[in-house]
Amino acid sequence: MLELYYAAHTCSLATHIVLEEVGADFTLHRISFADEEQKSATYRRINPKARVPALVTSDGVLTETPAMLAYVAQCYPHANLAPLDSPFEFAEVQAVNSYLCSSLHVAHAHRMRGHRWTDEVAAVEALQRFVPVSVGECYAYIEREVLRGPWVMGDRYSLADPYLFTIAQWLEADGVDPQKFPRVIEHRERVRARGATVRAIAAELADEC
Amino acid sequence: MLELYYAAHTCSLATHIVLEEVGADFTLHRISFADEEQKSATYRRINPKARVPALVTSDGVLTETPAMLAYVAQCYPHANLAPLDSPFEFAEVQAVNSYLCSSLHVAHAHRMRGHRWTDEVAAVEALQRFVPVSVGECYAYIEREVLRGPWVMGDRYSLADPYLFTIAQWLEADGVDPQKFPRVIEHRERVRARGATVRAIAAELADEC
Repeated sequence: MLELYYAAHTCSLATHIVLEEVGADFTLHRISFADEEQKSATYRRINPKARVPALVTSDGVLTETPAMLAYVAQCYPHANLAPLDSPFEFAEVQAVNSYLCSSLHVAHAHRMRGHRWTDEVAAVEALQRFVPVSVGECYAYIEREVLRGPWVMGDRYSLADPYLFTIAQWLEADGVDPQKFPRVIEHRERVRARGATVRAIAAELADEC
Repeated sequence: MLELYYAAHTCSLATHIVLEEVGADFTLHRISFADEEQKSATYRRINPKARVPALVTSDGVLTETPAMLAYVAQCYPHANLAPLDSPFEFAEVQAVNSYLCSSLHVAHAHRMRGHRWTDEVAAVEALQRFVPVSVGECYAYIEREVLRGPWVMGDRYSLADPYLFTIAQWLEADGVDPQKFPRVIEHRERVRARGATVRAIAAELADEC
């Protein structure tokens, strides 16, 4: 039995969707950012980084979305969520996820979490102003170079799809014009329509009530 | 035959060391950041992100350090650079590398590459001022929670070691006091002393002349 610690409207949704995709037996634990629950001593014992997501497995705790996604794909190989038999193709998926994690998500984080990189109010505001540019540049690269269609890696749905979908949900709030990135938006709708995505979002909304 | 595109004093050293560790047959291509060669049309055809590293393989080009490191480990399983038979242990290594990529390296990048997240000079300077704090927080977490010793994952040298070593070379320049992180510094010396590390650094220095 797996246990996923998540927070609403965060990147933990990617792992949640993937657990639904593979039909895993798992329980959800909601961490309230409004109550700063991620900073509690109890949660820090699970994830000392005080972030979500965290995945409790029978072997121990995993963190970091790209690692957790690959773990689920490897534990449920029949779900075919990654080309596990080809080191090159597996690395291609991992490279997309690494980019999403370290470039796109990081650019996005400068809108709400500028305090990670400066303690000066004026600089935090400057970072917020630039988010439409830096996040937009990431989507321009994804639209042009990454998204093969219909799924990120081409004909085969993979770990990269729910991860891009999750972050792309924030595109408009990041001040990016969705009309500039029709392929990203079309991909977002395609992932949103999948049963696993619908179930994951519904579960997080139900948990919120 | 693999081809590694690298730049001196960048994170590409991690992949370079790993190629030496496994005894791969590879050639090096130096990209001069001083000459902005990474932005040239020629290099953008290899890596449209205009960044290093890039690894040209017989199947195509790979980017993103965590993905490239895992690729090399999977192509050379006998070198034992990752616990490939255990999805959980492999994910643990990947989680460390993902953290190094998306948290520690990103915090560091705010010293020299603040323009990625703001176009305002005062804000770029504010980001630089905060680097000792944000990078220091990452090392505090690594010292306390990540580094098992003698290697990052414990008794077994893995992909996480050359990656942490590479970034930790910048610790002093980032304004972090090395005396606060004796385990990180001791680990850095341990990796530096390995034959593969010595050879990789020597090759990059020779290339520079």
